[in-house]
Amino acid sequence: MAVYTHLGAEDLAELIAEFNVGELRSAKGIAEGVSNSNWLIETSGKDGQGARFILTMYEFRIDITELPYFLGLLDHLAERGCPVPRTIHDRSGALYRHIGDKALALIEFLPGVSVSHPTAGQALAVGRALAQLHRAAADYPASRANGMDLAESRRLADACTPAGLAEIDPALPALVQRELTSLEANWPQDLPRSVIHADLFPDNVLMLGDTVTGLIDFYFACNDITAYDIAVTHAAWCFASDGTGFDRAVSHALLAGYEAERPLSAEERAALPVLAQGAALRFLMSRAYDWLNTPKGALVMPKDPMAFARRLEFYADPANRAVFAAS
Amino acid sequence: MAVYTHLGAEDLAELIAEFNVGELRSAKGIAEGVSNSNWLIETSGKDGQGARFILTMYEFRIDITELPYFLGLLDHLAERGCPVPRTIHDRSGALYRHIGDKALALIEFLPGVSVSHPTAGQALAVGRALAQLHRAAADYPASRANGMDLAESRRLADACTPAGLAEIDPALPALVQRELTSLEANWPQDLPRSVIHADLFPDNVLMLGDTVTGLIDFYFACNDITAYDIAVTHAAWCFASDGTGFDRAVSHALLAGYEAERPLSAEERAALPVLAQGAALRFLMSRAYDWLNTPKGALVMPKDPMAFARRLEFYADPANRAVFAAS
Repeated sequence: MAVYTHLGAEDLAELIAEFNVGELRSAKGIAEGVSNSNWLIETSGKDGQGARFILTMYEFRIDITELPYFLGLLDHLAERGCPVPRTIHDRSGALYRHIGDKALALIEFLPGVSVSHPTAGQALAVGRALAQLHRAAADYPASRANGMDLAESRRLADACTPAGLAEIDPALPALVQRELTSLEANWPQDLPRSVIHADLFPDNVLMLGDTVTGLIDFYFACNDITAYDIAVTHAAWCFASDGTGFDRAVSHALLAGYEAERPLSAEERAALPVLAQGAALRFLMSRAYDWLNTPKGALVMPKDPMAFARRLEFYADPANRAVFAAS
Repeated sequence: MAVYTHLGAEDLAELIAEFNVGELRSAKGIAEGVSNSNWLIETSGKDGQGARFILTMYEFRIDITELPYFLGLLDHLAERGCPVPRTIHDRSGALYRHIGDKALALIEFLPGVSVSHPTAGQALAVGRALAQLHRAAADYPASRANGMDLAESRRLADACTPAGLAEIDPALPALVQRELTSLEANWPQDLPRSVIHADLFPDNVLMLGDTVTGLIDFYFACNDITAYDIAVTHAAWCFASDGTGFDRAVSHALLAGYEAERPLSAEERAALPVLAQGAALRFLMSRAYDWLNTPKGALVMPKDPMAFARRLEFYADPANRAVFAAS
């Protein structure tokens, strides 16, 4: 939530001139993106009617060689009717530009706001949009490994150390050890795979009422088990942000919306409880690592890992498997 | 540079419904304002054609009882043709709304960008806009004392202590003492007074090319010596941000632009060197205080006080008085 790089009006005007989008009329640094700086840009537009864009400068974490995968995916999905922002190519046709040792892309602005308390109607629309994304991405030619897979959760757990995890909560080392061991033994191997978003939290979905107007922030997108993306989205949408208050109606609507576009096989449905445990563990471990490794008073406040420990306990409880049963 | 308060889409939609501006379509937290949280809001507009606004939540420093002065001034100036954003009144006619113990105002969005390296043409336009503001504000009925006057610089110097100032730079305690003593003895008493902006840095001016499209951030506005506002603007526009590189052409254009709208009296012009020393000291002292009192690693990085110590030395040097001589 910050703008890390100062770009003056003169720098911005020069940059925007490299795209065929008219002249710069406004630029506001926006408080989004943990590893990027973002500006909401307004130009005169090609026709003088005005146009808006998000200008993203990639600052940290993202390997620039991976940008073609992310930015090309936006174009691929937008062409197939998914509500994702197109990448604006520069006058030479490039997907992004270099500026010093950083990279910079201009991306279509989409209307909509991110909901904090999703309704069942909204979850239905998000489930449907996720399935559309999976279908539309089926013929995306590029591939990228999931950098946040189960092996990475194991590496993060080792890096946190049991003592570190115990600092967060005394029960955490045992929970993490138990779940890692169980998931490593039971992780599904033969499920359908595709491009997945892998981070479809409410923050990354723009909505107007019950309509999805934008799926955004594809910087964790990768190729992995398709149903794992449902599990991530389920963990992200069906609880209060602190991990309590499971909402059965939202859960049901999310799965129903998904199946309206892409019915799940019996194997996929049966795997959902395990996949959901894996999804909860993935966010638990990345948050625990950030919690232990963020300097006090840093610009970005780390998020509470326990919000995902609670989800993990929920998904690990056999009594809750019925959540994923076919209706 | 931060958004201090989280407002979810549901909160925002409810808030926007209190104004006659159509339905919420987009909201982005923007990285502006040190003591406020700000969102760039888009709505459907009254006519469905779309409209944009800045939503400001007053978090710190601003006394809510002073909001009518600031927000009423925007309306007063906009009605008289000054390029300032209007305050959008709510459905009951109120200038701002309470939300918990905070206050919140909806303000017109204006196009334009803030320049980092002003040209003489831009300085001319800014000088002219400042004089227009002074003339338009002449019949503004409300009044507010300058909280950042010379007496406040003295209080801040005492609070910093000579030892604190010496931590910043060994020469600073002597410079501050000398200037305070001299300015207290020589501060002009009988110059014309009016509403002044008191903080018209390039950041607070929106421009398109050489046209001023917006004067913004009036939260230091007050009633004080009119020509002091020219001195503040001069200190803010005529140097590189580190206080070096005085630009004679920009200085000349700023004063010429001002006088094209509101010619200075001989007394005002003669007072400009002293007023400019006072302006430089005012920003030196507030920055020095923030420098010494901002915790390490805080969200907002304090600005370098020495950038204004250099301006103060410049204005205190008799050789530079010619800068303000009539041309």
